[in-house]
Amino acid sequence: MKKSYSAVIGLASGTVLLIWSIMSSGDIMSFVHLPSMATTLGGSFAALVISFPMKDLMKVPKILKMLVNTPEQDRVRLITMFSELARKARRDGLLALEDDLNNMEDEFLVSGLQMVVDGIEPDIIREILTLKMETTERRHRMGQSIFTKWAELAPAFGMLGTLVGLVVMLADLQDASSIGSGMAVALITTFYGSLLANLIFIPIASNLSVQTNEEMVSKEMAIEGVIEIQAGTNPRILEEKLMTYLSPEELKMLKEERTTSTEALSYE
Amino acid sequence: MKKSYSAVIGLASGTVLLIWSIMSSGDIMSFVHLPSMATTLGGSFAALVISFPMKDLMKVPKILKMLVNTPEQDRVRLITMFSELARKARRDGLLALEDDLNNMEDEFLVSGLQMVVDGIEPDIIREILTLKMETTERRHRMGQSIFTKWAELAPAFGMLGTLVGLVVMLADLQDASSIGSGMAVALITTFYGSLLANLIFIPIASNLSVQTNEEMVSKEMAIEGVIEIQAGTNPRILEEKLMTYLSPEELKMLKEERTTSTEALSYE
Amino acid sequence: MKKSYSAVIGLASGTVLLIWSIMSSGDIMSFVHLPSMATTLGGSFAALVISFPMKDLMKVPKILKMLVNTPEQDRVRLITMFSELARKARRDGLLALEDDLNNMEDEFLVSGLQMVVDGIEPDIIREILTLKMETTERRHRMGQSIFTKWAELAPAFGMLGTLVGLVVMLADLQDASSIGSGMAVALITTFYGSLLANLIFIPIASNLSVQTNEEMVSKEMAIEGVIEIQAGTNPRILEEKLMTYLSPEELKMLKEERTTSTEALSYE
Amino acid sequence: MKKSYSAVIGLASGTVLLIWSIMSSGDIMSFVHLPSMATTLGGSFAALVISFPMKDLMKVPKILKMLVNTPEQDRVRLITMFSELARKARRDGLLALEDDLNNMEDEFLVSGLQMVVDGIEPDIIREILTLKMETTERRHRMGQSIFTKWAELAPAFGMLGTLVGLVVMLADLQDASSIGSGMAVALITTFYGSLLANLIFIPIASNLSVQTNEEMVSKEMAIEGVIEIQAGTNPRILEEKLMTYLSPEELKMLKEERTTSTEALSYE
Amino acid sequence: MKKSYSAVIGLASGTVLLIWSIMSSGDIMSFVHLPSMATTLGGSFAALVISFPMKDLMKVPKILKMLVNTPEQDRVRLITMFSELARKARRDGLLALEDDLNNMEDEFLVSGLQMVVDGIEPDIIREILTLKMETTERRHRMGQSIFTKWAELAPAFGMLGTLVGLVVMLADLQDASSIGSGMAVALITTFYGSLLANLIFIPIASNLSVQTNEEMVSKEMAIEGVIEIQAGTNPRILEEKLMTYLSPEELKMLKEERTTSTEALSYE
Repeated sequence: MKKSYSAVIGLASGTVLLIWSIMSSGDIMSFVHLPSMATTLGGSFAALVISFPMKDLMKVPKILKMLVNTPEQDRVRLITMFSELARKARRDGLLALEDDLNNMEDEFLVSGLQMVVDGIEPDIIREILTLKMETTERRHRMGQSIFTKWAELAPAFGMLGTLVGLVVMLADLQDASSIGSGMAVALITTFYGSLLANLIFIPIASNLSVQTNEEMVSKEMAIEGVIEIQAGTNPRILEEKLMTYLSPEELKMLKEERTTSTEALSYE
Repeated sequence: MKKSYSAVIGLASGTVLLIWSIMSSGDIMSFVHLPSMATTLGGSFAALVISFPMKDLMKVPKILKMLVNTPEQDRVRLITMFSELARKARRDGLLALEDDLNNMEDEFLVSGLQMVVDGIEPDIIREILTLKMETTERRHRMGQSIFTKWAELAPAFGMLGTLVGLVVMLADLQDASSIGSGMAVALITTFYGSLLANLIFIPIASNLSVQTNEEMVSKEMAIEGVIEIQAGTNPRILEEKLMTYLSPEELKMLKEERTTSTEALSYE
Repeated sequence: MKKSYSAVIGLASGTVLLIWSIMSSGDIMSFVHLPSMATTLGGSFAALVISFPMKDLMKVPKILKMLVNTPEQDRVRLITMFSELARKARRDGLLALEDDLNNMEDEFLVSGLQMVVDGIEPDIIREILTLKMETTERRHRMGQSIFTKWAELAPAFGMLGTLVGLVVMLADLQDASSIGSGMAVALITTFYGSLLANLIFIPIASNLSVQTNEEMVSKEMAIEGVIEIQAGTNPRILEEKLMTYLSPEELKMLKEERTTSTEALSYE
Repeated sequence: MKKSYSAVIGLASGTVLLIWSIMSSGDIMSFVHLPSMATTLGGSFAALVISFPMKDLMKVPKILKMLVNTPEQDRVRLITMFSELARKARRDGLLALEDDLNNMEDEFLVSGLQMVVDGIEPDIIREILTLKMETTERRHRMGQSIFTKWAELAPAFGMLGTLVGLVVMLADLQDASSIGSGMAVALITTFYGSLLANLIFIPIASNLSVQTNEEMVSKEMAIEGVIEIQAGTNPRILEEKLMTYLSPEELKMLKEERTTSTEALSYE
Repeated sequence: MKKSYSAVIGLASGTVLLIWSIMSSGDIMSFVHLPSMATTLGGSFAALVISFPMKDLMKVPKILKMLVNTPEQDRVRLITMFSELARKARRDGLLALEDDLNNMEDEFLVSGLQMVVDGIEPDIIREILTLKMETTERRHRMGQSIFTKWAELAPAFGMLGTLVGLVVMLADLQDASSIGSGMAVALITTFYGSLLANLIFIPIASNLSVQTNEEMVSKEMAIEGVIEIQAGTNPRILEEKLMTYLSPEELKMLKEERTTSTEALSYE
């Protein structure tokens, strides 16, 4: 787990920017209208309650925490670890890996290596780990789809609120001087809907999606590593294979780490 | 079958919210306009009658019932059941499973296990069950596509109604005082169209889609279980495999159930 | 071939509804404007002539007939037929099927069974039938894409017509009293474009797409049946397999038919 | 190569229709505004220059020629030819095909048959021809994507031009009488953008896409034919297979040709 | 690396065109409004900070450099090189290729040929190179998705700015003479948002996407070449295979090169 404050910073700076933009030209109080917020946010949430099972919607607060507590995908460390495990397995046998399992945090990796220690067949290990990965991805995509749907519904309910305002205003045009303020109030729900969608829901869905993509790559890497360890692959080839998942930046980090480390990489 | 009232609650609260929003600023009667509702709902339904076969459209009331009577996907129970069946099959042979079939409700599962008992080959069982699953999914997606299409057509007919209103109003502008109320009436069809789409049709399509996704996962799990039982797989490996379909919450439930149960899970 | 009038009924009722909606508030004659119709329908058709080869566009009248003369997909009858053919083939040999071919109407099925009688290899039969199915689907999807494209172009040309009307009106604003009627005329092309798309082209494309989906399922079923007959599969397993393509309603029909029929289904 | 004038006819008739539509209600000169055309067409082309490599953009004139000189996909002739080649190959051996290669125009077919004559293995022939087909498709899709992108950018730059016009007009409202003509000029870029997209770029992209689809089907057919000739397949089965790519119209043409031809089709 | 200035030229000419278009009708200063630019660009960037990890956003300047320094995909040279390597490998053995590796720049190619020299199995080489290619593509698509997302967010924040301007203006309509300039200012954020999206972000995303597509084709070609060299394929067949990736223009270049070169291509 790594704390990432960029989502908070983005949200805060976007909000400050809009407030500054409003205050530089008009009165901020024209934009604070609780009934309009209730219509836009409440209405779109009501539609969301129809769209998704309650048990998924109740995970929203937990999902939001993921914006700050992003699971770290440290692939450089993963390679170093797999490299050591592969050497150990070749030297002392697969059973020797059992001791290392207690110190690992990643449940996915532990379950995979445990199956290796238990002597389960490679095909079954790959199948089980792949299914696990897919189940995790499906669950994550579900969380994202809540925000994607919300991002569609919020502007729609904003527009509904504006239509309500317009019809009310147009149905009673006696006082011409009130047309402007009526229009202003009517437009605020569209403003809220668009703001919720573009500053909050769409970016959150995108953030979660990128996180999931990253996690899936790490998981693919882990499956590859587990299978190769079981097959007793040469640690250097294992590394070569896993290094294909690294970006140039990560490759550079790995090489720097290697240089400073006294334990040289060699064909054992 | 499980009663789920969240769809009803969402629809009710969304409606209440909109009514409150209207009444707090204007007269609710400006929004009750039967001819406009007839144009929007009737017109979009007429287009729907062209789009889909009658026999599919007539399933709409039955589909709507699924919003409340959601088929329960109790995967924890499914695992427990498969685990017991696997033990029984190993102990007493595959034919011993026939007794259990009478107590099962899930037609899909029964048909799969019946084929196991009948000694049909694994490849054919998997093929038949997969075809069945695909047929079910196709049928469900068809139902969803009706609501997805309706969600597109309703706002379109709302806009058509508004265009009718605008043209009628503009063609006869003598009485300037009637412009406002003319515009108001014209906008109501757009309001209806957007309301139908965003509070009703889009959420229903989404609800049905999530239900189908969940059902397909359970069916995949069931196919896996049936095939493994036939293969005489070790019950613990079977469980390990099926547990890959569970979410962390379901896994926790399964573990709690296990702890309270006296029957320990062991390598038999 | 089965006559299906739901497309005609949908179109007629939608038109009546809109006419009623117009007449209840204004003058129907404001909506009859031949030059506007020429711009919208003619312009979008001109763009269609650029988009598709002439030989495909000339099939449009033939495609439209399919809305009424829908090819019937009677899967229950298909199963009964395959079941009988399978029994006959097991009893009297594959060559005995030749007599039945003359009574069949479905060209696809005949060509498949003819290849069985001719003793062509199963792999080649499956390949040829699959290719045939794909060619048919490609051709059908082509027909649908004409209407899908038209449904995009018609509102675009409607908007072009409105822009023409607006520019003409705005360029010459001397007579303020003519603004309203100018605007009204300008909006009519948008009305026509949206009407053509949403009441006619989109529903037709959807109707054709559903028909094609249904036809493809029947064809898949037929391929499965032909291959299994050639393989000499047990008629009961053949039925079990083909029944996976049926919806619950069709299954019920099949069972009812079976009960009334004296010829019981048994393991031969 | 076949001359196809339908694209030219469509473009001409669409233009005439719009000009007539304009002239019947106003002055055609209000729609001729070179600076607006420069903004819309030039601006969108500038964005296109950023989007695509120069070497691809320079192919646009060549691509446009394809709208008139459409490569003919004469599949009936292709079948007749393959049928004759298959007979010849069975009679005189594969090397005898070399003479026919000089008379063929289709480079794709020649390269495939040349490999057959050279005795290259079937797997490699299929792989090379498939790669060639994919390279051709990729190149064609690239050309289409230029027009698809242009069809997105043209209306966007049209709207930008309208925004420029509106801001200029609104910033200086002293002379109320000029509002109308200001608006009219502002709207013309939107008109141009929409016209370019819907009468020119979208239809051209669609036309090219249909051509490519057709060409790919013919190429798939050619690959199938080349492979079967090498395998020494029975000419009748080869024909049966290739006939699956034909539409009912083409099948009818093939049968008519056969009937008039004295050379009957028989099992050799 | 090749310098490509078309992106710069496109951007410059588009900007000049728009400035000319503005100046020919109004005052350029009406379009310079820093607070509006801050709202549109800053707001959409704030949303981008929520959407993507900081480490990816910080690559944006480096990505922008790719618009000018486009990696050259010289497939003609690649074929010539592979052809020579294949001859050398057949003559002197695979180990002889090691000398050539030092002169090569392309890291991807070097790593592939190094594995060939090291005697690693073909399947593993193909797997590792394919994984490397996919990792590169994923990374490139990530960079593109930043601009694609920005192209969605910029117009959205432009519209938010316009809504702010409208609400402020409508809330205070006392001074009727300021309505025009208020509207003008309000519309400028929409102008900025649309301009950023259509002249900058969308074209950049498209440019990067085309570059990646081209690079992936070259990489696929390189994988094919490496594998064939290891397999000791006849250089002429290797060339035939790799030439399938060339466009007609590149094929012509290759043939011209061949003609001028004294080293003829022959079956060795």
